[in-house]
Amino acid sequence: MIMEFTIQQVAGMIGGTVEGDGSLRVTMLAKIQDAKAGQIAFLANPKYEQFLYTTKASAVIINRTLELKKPVDATLIRVDDAYSSFTGLLEAYDRILSFSKTGVEEPSYIGKDSVTGSGIYRGAFSYIGQNVKIGDNVKIHPHAFIGDGCEIGDHTIIHAGVKIYPGNLIGSRCEIHAGTVIGSDGFGFAPQKDGSYKKIPQLGKVKIEDDVTIGANTVIDCATMAGDFTIVRKGVKLDNLIQIAHNVEVGSHTVIAAQTGISGSTTIGEQCMIGGQVGIAGHLNVAARTGVAGQSGVTKSIKEPGTKVMGPIAFEIGEFLKAYAVFKNRGL
Amino acid sequence: MIMEFTIQQVAGMIGGTVEGDGSLRVTMLAKIQDAKAGQIAFLANPKYEQFLYTTKASAVIINRTLELKKPVDATLIRVDDAYSSFTGLLEAYDRILSFSKTGVEEPSYIGKDSVTGSGIYRGAFSYIGQNVKIGDNVKIHPHAFIGDGCEIGDHTIIHAGVKIYPGNLIGSRCEIHAGTVIGSDGFGFAPQKDGSYKKIPQLGKVKIEDDVTIGANTVIDCATMAGDFTIVRKGVKLDNLIQIAHNVEVGSHTVIAAQTGISGSTTIGEQCMIGGQVGIAGHLNVAARTGVAGQSGVTKSIKEPGTKVMGPIAFEIGEFLKAYAVFKNRGL
Amino acid sequence: MIMEFTIQQVAGMIGGTVEGDGSLRVTMLAKIQDAKAGQIAFLANPKYEQFLYTTKASAVIINRTLELKKPVDATLIRVDDAYSSFTGLLEAYDRILSFSKTGVEEPSYIGKDSVTGSGIYRGAFSYIGQNVKIGDNVKIHPHAFIGDGCEIGDHTIIHAGVKIYPGNLIGSRCEIHAGTVIGSDGFGFAPQKDGSYKKIPQLGKVKIEDDVTIGANTVIDCATMAGDFTIVRKGVKLDNLIQIAHNVEVGSHTVIAAQTGISGSTTIGEQCMIGGQVGIAGHLNVAARTGVAGQSGVTKSIKEPGTKVMGPIAFEIGEFLKAYAVFKNRGL
Repeated sequence: MIMEFTIQQVAGMIGGTVEGDGSLRVTMLAKIQDAKAGQIAFLANPKYEQFLYTTKASAVIINRTLELKKPVDATLIRVDDAYSSFTGLLEAYDRILSFSKTGVEEPSYIGKDSVTGSGIYRGAFSYIGQNVKIGDNVKIHPHAFIGDGCEIGDHTIIHAGVKIYPGNLIGSRCEIHAGTVIGSDGFGFAPQKDGSYKKIPQLGKVKIEDDVTIGANTVIDCATMAGDFTIVRKGVKLDNLIQIAHNVEVGSHTVIAAQTGISGSTTIGEQCMIGGQVGIAGHLNVAARTGVAGQSGVTKSIKEPGTKVMGPIAFEIGEFLKAYAVFKNRGL
Repeated sequence: MIMEFTIQQVAGMIGGTVEGDGSLRVTMLAKIQDAKAGQIAFLANPKYEQFLYTTKASAVIINRTLELKKPVDATLIRVDDAYSSFTGLLEAYDRILSFSKTGVEEPSYIGKDSVTGSGIYRGAFSYIGQNVKIGDNVKIHPHAFIGDGCEIGDHTIIHAGVKIYPGNLIGSRCEIHAGTVIGSDGFGFAPQKDGSYKKIPQLGKVKIEDDVTIGANTVIDCATMAGDFTIVRKGVKLDNLIQIAHNVEVGSHTVIAAQTGISGSTTIGEQCMIGGQVGIAGHLNVAARTGVAGQSGVTKSIKEPGTKVMGPIAFEIGEFLKAYAVFKNRGL
Repeated sequence: MIMEFTIQQVAGMIGGTVEGDGSLRVTMLAKIQDAKAGQIAFLANPKYEQFLYTTKASAVIINRTLELKKPVDATLIRVDDAYSSFTGLLEAYDRILSFSKTGVEEPSYIGKDSVTGSGIYRGAFSYIGQNVKIGDNVKIHPHAFIGDGCEIGDHTIIHAGVKIYPGNLIGSRCEIHAGTVIGSDGFGFAPQKDGSYKKIPQLGKVKIEDDVTIGANTVIDCATMAGDFTIVRKGVKLDNLIQIAHNVEVGSHTVIAAQTGISGSTTIGEQCMIGGQVGIAGHLNVAARTGVAGQSGVTKSIKEPGTKVMGPIAFEIGEFLKAYAVFKNRGL
C-alpha cells in the first residue's frame, strides 16, 4: 500500500504554512539526513540544521520561528512545534498502515453463530471458531486462531499466528503480536502416591482489558477454576516471550520487558515497571509502581508502593548495588 | 458445546444420594460463593459452610455426615467425600471438553499413505504430511503441523499451531500446547578457520513417551546423529517457553517450570523438580529427585539423588541461602 | 523420501576405493555400533575398531591405511580421511533432505505482484503477501507467513509457522526454524501524564544478511524509525527462544545460545560467543570476540575485543569466579 499526499494536504493535516511548491507529492516519512525525493522530513533539533540545506527530501517540517541561513531546495511546512507535528504524522501513518487491510481473504474459516463487525480483516488461513463475537475494525491476520466462544472488542489487531484458546476475552484497541498464545492450560498437577502427576483441570479463562499491547511469542495461561480469570488490566504493555501463569493479575498501565515470567496466582499492581528476564514467584502481591531490575528474582510480596528491587533474591536496589560492590571486591 | 445433566444423573455418576428436586438440569461446575442457577457447587471445607445457606447453585455436593444448621434452597447430593467427588466431576468435565471435537474441518491437508485412527479431530488448516501414523481419539487442532513420517499414539491432543518436524515420535495420552515446536535442529556448528561456522547436520529425532504434557511455545530440538533421540520420558510435565536442546533426556515424572533451558546432551533423572528460568549446562547428569530453585544455573553434574540446589552457579540450597544472607549484609 | 545409492556410487562421491560388493544398495548413514543392513557407517577413531568386525552395516568407510585384524562382512570404502568423508556425506545428505521438497501444495496463498524463483517449495497453508520477491530454491514450509513487500534470497529455508512481518529482508542460504517471528513491533511506549503509555510507531524493518541460522520461536523486532533496520549480519547463528529488540545489530559470525535477550539499540560485535539466558541491556556496544557466560547480565559496554565476562552484573570471568568462591564460603 502506498499513501500519497500533496505537501499542501500534509500541511493542512498539521495546521502548517507552505513555503515553496505545495503541489509536489510525498509518500513517506524519513530522517532529514537520509531522506530522498518524494519523502518528508522534519527539523526540530538545531544541531541537525546543516542537513536542511542539503536534504533531498521534497518537504521539511520546521518551526515557524526558524530563520534560514541559506537557500533551501525542499518545500517547507512551518508549524508551531515541528517535533510534535512530525510524531503526530508518524502516529497517523502507523494507524493507517495498521488498519489498512479489510475484507476476507480465502480460504479462511469461521464457525457457525460467530459475528464480526464492520471494517474487519480476516486473512487467509485465519480460523474463527463458533459463537465468537468480534467488534468493528478488528484485524485478524493470517494463521490466527480464535477459539469457540471468544470475544474481541473494537479496533483490536490480532497478528499472524496468534492462538487464542476457546472462551477468552480480549478488549478494545488491543494489539497482540505474532505467535502469542492466550488461554493455554495453567501448569497444575497433583502428585500421586506412585510418583506420577495427575492433571488438575484448568477450566478458567483469560481476560485482556482495553488498550493492552502484547509482544510476540508470549504465553498467558488460563485460570484454574471455572469462573475465574487470569487478568491483564487496561493499558498494560507486555513485551515478547513473556510467561504469565494461571490466575495472575497484572495491574493497569504496568510495563513488563521481554522474557520475564510471573508465577501462578501472583498479583502485580498498577504502573509497575518490570525489567526483562525477571522471575516473580507465585502467590505474591507486588505493590503499585514497583520497579524490578532486569534478571531479578522476586520471592516475597512487596508492600510499599514505588519500591525498587534487584538481585537473584531481590531486595532494595541501592542495598543490592552496595552488596554487589563488596562481592565484586571479594569482601575487601 | 453445552453439557447438560439432571442432578439425578450427576448423583448417579458419583454414587451420591439426592435430597430435593433431582430433575433440575445443571450445566456447569462453580465455586459455592459464585455459583448461579443451573450450576453445581460443592462444600468440603467447613469454613465455607455459610455459603451453603445462601448459594444460588441449583445443586451442592456435600458430605454425608454434614448436619444442616438452616434450610437450604439448593438440591443436595450427599457423598462420602465431597471434595474428591467434585474433583472427579471436574476431571470428567475437562476430559469430555478436551475430546469433544471430532471429524475433519476443511480445508485441511493430509499427505499420501498417512493413517488416522477412530474418533480423530483434524481442525481446519491442520497439516499432516506423508506416511504419518496417528492413533485413536487424537485431536489435531487448527494450524498444527505434523511432518512426514511422524507417529502419534492414542488419546493425544495437539493444540493449535504446534509444529512437529518430520520423523518424530509422540506417545499416547500426551497433550502439547499451542505454538510448541518439536524436532527443530540442534544448535550445532563447527568453527571454521576463517571465523565462520559450518552447520553440523542434525539428523536425529525426538521421542516423547506416554502421558507427557508440554506447555505453549516450548522448543525441543532433535538429536544430532541419525538413529539418536532427544527423549522426554513417560509422565514428564513441561511448562511454557522451555528450551530442551539436542540429545537431552528428561527422566520420567520430572516436572520443569516455565522458561527453563536444558543444554545439549544433558540427562535429567526421574522425578526431579526444576524451577522456572533455570539454566542447566550441557553434557551433565542430574540425579533422580533433584530439586533446582528458580533462576539457578547448574554447571556440574549432581550425583546424589534428592539434592536441592540454588544459585547462579548452583550449590546446596541451605548453604546458598546462608551465603546470600552474608552477601546481603555485605559481610557484616 | 528415500535416497538409495549403490556402494559404488557412494565411493565415487567421496573418491574412495571399494573392497567387496559395490553393487549393494545403501539408504542411510548410521553409527558403526548401531548400523543395520542397508546402512553405511564409518570408522575413524581406533577405539571403535572392534565394531568393524561385528557391524551389520552394508558398507563402512575406513582410512586407506587401516590394516584389518580380522575378516569383515561389510563392504569397505577406503578413503584418505574417513571422518571428513563421512561428515561430507552427512552434509550432502542433510542438504538433499532439506531441499528435497519442491512445488506448490494447495491450498496456499500468494498475493499479487509477488515473484518466486525456480525450485521453490510452497507448503500447504503458506501465505505470501503482495510484492514479495523470493529467490531460487527457497523452501517455504506450511503455515509460514511472509508479509507484503518482503524479500528472500536464494537457497533459504523458512520452516513451518515462521512469521515475517511486511517489508523485511532475508538473505541467501539462511535457515529460519519453526515459530520464529521477524519484524514484530519494537517495545517502545511514551509515558503520558495520566500514567498511561502511548505507542511510539515502529516503522523500521529487519535485515537478515546471508548465511544466518535462526532457531525456533525466536523473536526479532523491527527498528523504530522508517529507513532504519534491526540487523543480523552475515553468518550469525541464533538459537531458540531468543529476543532481539528494536535497532539491535548483531555482528557477523556471532553465536548466541538459547533464551538470551538483547535490549534495544545495542550493537554486538563480530565473532562474539554469547551463552544462554544472557541479558544485555540497551544502548551498549559489545566489542568483537566478546564471550559472555550463560545467565550473565551485561549492563555496560565492553570495549576490549576478546573480553570474557560473567555474573548478574557481569565483569571479567576470572574475577567473577574468585568473587563467587568467596561468596560461597561466606567470606571465610
